[in-house]
Amino acid sequence: MSGWLKVVGLGPGGDALITPEVSAALAEATDVVGYLPYVERVAPRPGLTRHGSDNREEIRRAEQALQLAANGQRVVVVSSGDPGVFAMAAALFEALEAGEPEWRALDIQVLPGISAMLAASARVGAPLGHDFCCINLSDNLKPWALIEKRLRLAAEADFAMAFYNPRSRARPEGFARALEVLREACGPERLIMFARAVSTPEESLRVTTLGEATAEMADMRTLVMVGSSQTRLIQRHAGGAESAERESTPWVYTPRSVSGAGS
Amino acid sequence: MSGWLKVVGLGPGGDALITPEVSAALAEATDVVGYLPYVERVAPRPGLTRHGSDNREEIRRAEQALQLAANGQRVVVVSSGDPGVFAMAAALFEALEAGEPEWRALDIQVLPGISAMLAASARVGAPLGHDFCCINLSDNLKPWALIEKRLRLAAEADFAMAFYNPRSRARPEGFARALEVLREACGPERLIMFARAVSTPEESLRVTTLGEATAEMADMRTLVMVGSSQTRLIQRHAGGAESAERESTPWVYTPRSVSGAGS
Repeated sequence: MSGWLKVVGLGPGGDALITPEVSAALAEATDVVGYLPYVERVAPRPGLTRHGSDNREEIRRAEQALQLAANGQRVVVVSSGDPGVFAMAAALFEALEAGEPEWRALDIQVLPGISAMLAASARVGAPLGHDFCCINLSDNLKPWALIEKRLRLAAEADFAMAFYNPRSRARPEGFARALEVLREACGPERLIMFARAVSTPEESLRVTTLGEATAEMADMRTLVMVGSSQTRLIQRHAGGAESAERESTPWVYTPRSVSGAGS
Repeated sequence: MSGWLKVVGLGPGGDALITPEVSAALAEATDVVGYLPYVERVAPRPGLTRHGSDNREEIRRAEQALQLAANGQRVVVVSSGDPGVFAMAAALFEALEAGEPEWRALDIQVLPGISAMLAASARVGAPLGHDFCCINLSDNLKPWALIEKRLRLAAEADFAMAFYNPRSRARPEGFARALEVLREACGPERLIMFARAVSTPEESLRVTTLGEATAEMADMRTLVMVGSSQTRLIQRHAGGAESAERESTPWVYTPRSVSGAGS
């Protein structure tokens, strides 16, 4: 059996954020499997079959990839960002555990990628420069009560927070409710950042406060971050080679030190 | 003023994990500034000055980098992993905020990198595949009581956890105490992972339980992860092209779904 399976992260969008390790895996692959918009980020070439599938098809997609590798193919499963952060790696292992026993002898690797969270954080400065947490705000796969509980405990721990999947057409009210919980727990002055489609032509950034934030500021392509009580702003001065948007967006960072705060 | 400053992440160690964006910045730089072992990861070449400094010199290093850029140099500040996760980006913004007003007009960018956390997670499977938090266990810059408080709240939230700086010669007892707190909060059966020097020739992995874990399993180069209550093991079968160590280390993953657990 000469097949293999690599679960890789394509990063947030820009080609300059794809690691050489992932590019090498894609160059050797016979099959690329994933959500259609991510599969389409891999250029077609002779000898490569691209298997794009719909959203919410993760387990069927993982089974297909495992079966292709078992058949001797060189299979790359693509995720946006990092495959281990709310992406295909967990789905792959769910399918592996529940699937054919011989799949466990396959040569499987997970290759990390630049997560949306790290790309968004870099764009606005260093908001995750101190202890932080990362929460998927979708309640497709967990009860909403658990999301609220985690938001309250994260605020009590004074973590900076990164939120994936803040808002979808299927759940327009969830993010508004999350903002309410956060305003109650952190106060209206707390900083919140909306980073949409970072490293793509559609990139946009917005820095505001929980008091000013509305649910409409996020969509499915937005990574949302909320600062800790220590997170600070620095206004940028005009100059340098930055775009007009970047000049008008302040830097946001969370200092490395905290002297007794929250303890 | 034609200088610029880029704060970049070199990833966890392997060259194949450095993004093309970071490689391009290094190729254009006149000066590289950072902690000596990281500066030494950048190959010397004519026209490049490497400024290596000691650990715990972060603010002085950041000031030096800002001044070089203000003088018209093209400056890259290097961190291991991602610059925004317990690394140089926060220090840079601390120095920027406290420093010369004209520094705020500099062309500054943060370029993300593969964090140790994402690399370690990929190596063992997908332990951070559901909500998680990331805590620096060093009490150099925050009170120990705050670390313990965050550990207890993270356990209550049922986050998977990633820990940076678990252990140093200056604080041999801190990590043993953290393990005690976690055992008390999560029970002895909870999975814990030690990923040392991932992607380097010194890489080693160990998966065990909190009941079996000892402080000696971690050193300064170890990224430690603790699963949530949902985190699971899959034994690998022999076969494929994996190393003996990887064959003997089980896969660890946290499923995407949770049905009421912890809520």
